[in-house]
Amino acid sequence: MRSGKLYWPNTLLKSLARPARQAPQRSPSTRNMQRSLLRLAACAGLFASLCFPSALRSQAASAASFVMVIHGGAGTILRSSMTPEMEKAYIDTLTIALRTGYQILSRGGTSLDAVEAAIRVMEDCPLFNAGKGAVFTANGVNELDASIMDGKTLNAGAVAAVEHVRNPISLARLVMEKSPHVMMVGSGAEEFAKTQGVKLVPPYYFWTDRRWRAYEREKAREDSGKTGAAPDVDKKFGTVGAVALDRAGNLAAGTSTGGTDMKRYGRVGDSPIIGAGTYANNLSCAVSGTGDGEFFIRNNVAADICARVRYSGVSLQQAADDVVMKELVAQNGGGGVIAMDRKGNIATPFNTPGMYRAWVTSDGTITVKIYGD
Amino acid sequence: MRSGKLYWPNTLLKSLARPARQAPQRSPSTRNMQRSLLRLAACAGLFASLCFPSALRSQAASAASFVMVIHGGAGTILRSSMTPEMEKAYIDTLTIALRTGYQILSRGGTSLDAVEAAIRVMEDCPLFNAGKGAVFTANGVNELDASIMDGKTLNAGAVAAVEHVRNPISLARLVMEKSPHVMMVGSGAEEFAKTQGVKLVPPYYFWTDRRWRAYEREKAREDSGKTGAAPDVDKKFGTVGAVALDRAGNLAAGTSTGGTDMKRYGRVGDSPIIGAGTYANNLSCAVSGTGDGEFFIRNNVAADICARVRYSGVSLQQAADDVVMKELVAQNGGGGVIAMDRKGNIATPFNTPGMYRAWVTSDGTITVKIYGD
Repeated sequence: MRSGKLYWPNTLLKSLARPARQAPQRSPSTRNMQRSLLRLAACAGLFASLCFPSALRSQAASAASFVMVIHGGAGTILRSSMTPEMEKAYIDTLTIALRTGYQILSRGGTSLDAVEAAIRVMEDCPLFNAGKGAVFTANGVNELDASIMDGKTLNAGAVAAVEHVRNPISLARLVMEKSPHVMMVGSGAEEFAKTQGVKLVPPYYFWTDRRWRAYEREKAREDSGKTGAAPDVDKKFGTVGAVALDRAGNLAAGTSTGGTDMKRYGRVGDSPIIGAGTYANNLSCAVSGTGDGEFFIRNNVAADICARVRYSGVSLQQAADDVVMKELVAQNGGGGVIAMDRKGNIATPFNTPGMYRAWVTSDGTITVKIYGD
Repeated sequence: MRSGKLYWPNTLLKSLARPARQAPQRSPSTRNMQRSLLRLAACAGLFASLCFPSALRSQAASAASFVMVIHGGAGTILRSSMTPEMEKAYIDTLTIALRTGYQILSRGGTSLDAVEAAIRVMEDCPLFNAGKGAVFTANGVNELDASIMDGKTLNAGAVAAVEHVRNPISLARLVMEKSPHVMMVGSGAEEFAKTQGVKLVPPYYFWTDRRWRAYEREKAREDSGKTGAAPDVDKKFGTVGAVALDRAGNLAAGTSTGGTDMKRYGRVGDSPIIGAGTYANNLSCAVSGTGDGEFFIRNNVAADICARVRYSGVSLQQAADDVVMKELVAQNGGGGVIAMDRKGNIATPFNTPGMYRAWVTSDGTITVKIYGD
């Protein structure tokens, strides 16, 4: 696994997460989240300026086909509850993730490499519920899931319920490429990680002030017998994902998540389930989902969109809309997907108020969106 | 969870498995397998005679539609390597499992109940690689996976890597009906089981002489540096499953397995993956798979068959054949499926030499088959 330094400055990580030696599970900080986000925005902007040529950041839209789409989760994301600083932090990070993938694609790299690299950026960023920013389970730990799939070969890899892996998407790729298996779970997956030279991280690597405070709030609500949705806007749907099309015409998709907060009983959602949260097949399309995982599994969402494209002959947009905006809505299943077909058409439907999403065309033009409007 | 006594005489279990107090993992018995099978055949026959009306066992075939299909795994099952006693034991057990499900359906019960009950019979029988007869992992333990799905509601439940659950199919159903989740893994799933009053069994419940000897053989092969397929004909593909159609016109599917023998790293196959090993949707069909799990996941086999029926408008037979006999074969993915549509049409293609399979029509006519001819 590559060093996270390639994607995210360690100084930024330090500014957002309290170091382990400060006993995170007993006396969590009450530092202001907004200050952290301001730092993140500033750092992200600086990082982007340093790492990417300006040409990439200011190109006009063209007729070029799309080559990559990413998402940072769907959910109750409202303009009214977003500060300018927070919005900028998300936009900057999505831009960095997208450009990281785009750089690989523009140099002739594979869609698999681009998907993995873009997701690593988001996993290393505390803003998203994946990797570093994962939510806490009911037991106060972080359980991470991820999957990746190659549309050319149908090879796929997935891990679920790992607790000490910094970049689950890269471990999923190792499962795909270095084992005969598709899916590994729990400590077994981490045992495999060690055989591949992956350095496991201590649990407190995943500790962040923001998530811990959300955990404490929710724990207090549960302890007081209250039910209902927690106030954290990222609840449930903070998954990240990417789909890409490379110069060789091959599709790939990947998804990574920290799961639902306060989850129990080794619950596994759709993100590591090939066919539910992730699917890629050159014969149809590549999809990564974010949402109410149980509904994505029951509806086989990612693969079903691809099946509609392949067998019904409908457009990617219609297939994705029919699944996300009709079937899921009819079942009260919240969420969204990013999808791309082999012609570079994209669809990004979501039935929630917002979804962090961004795409880039082959000429480098980037679009980032957050809200439903 | 219901008592296993409903489905399988405890005396039979005792005759096939060495009791725990005999330190199974240190001094496994070398008792002759054939003797056990003879006992099984005799017991199964007796059990059938006692529990089922003779009318059910001798009805002539009719034009009635099929209401249930079960399988006990596909693989290298050859007539030349089967003794008459072993063959009879399999046939008798499949017949009992099928009749157990049929009795429920014929009384107006649900397809879900029938699927669960039939699979419990096979889980409780040491012949199949599920429940009691599960193979051993590389660590010398048993890790069980199962899933179940309701075609009417798309509700689904799955468990993976559980080690102390006698009937994983029933735990999968509890996950479906008593939790908001679809999938739970490992100790978390067992923690949930306890909240539901499921009595966990000690690991040695799953110890059987036959599987332990296979484990020892394979361990010796590995320790001596040899590779290649192990001699056990049930290797990899001993999964069990069922699909059913009830009087209300609702489909259901379920699958249960002990996984691949000598598996490592918390590997999870297709059986607990909704869409891969199990899928049911009243709009298309119900499918349970058995085979090389990784290929079933990559190809989204169960859901893909249903998608072809739903979107391409092809027959169930063609859809199942195209996936199992063409796509899987092209990728060297061994295995088979049982599939049923809402009209009661069935398909049971397999690309291996044999697949334990049986079906019953609405008039009670039962057919049991093992080989490819």
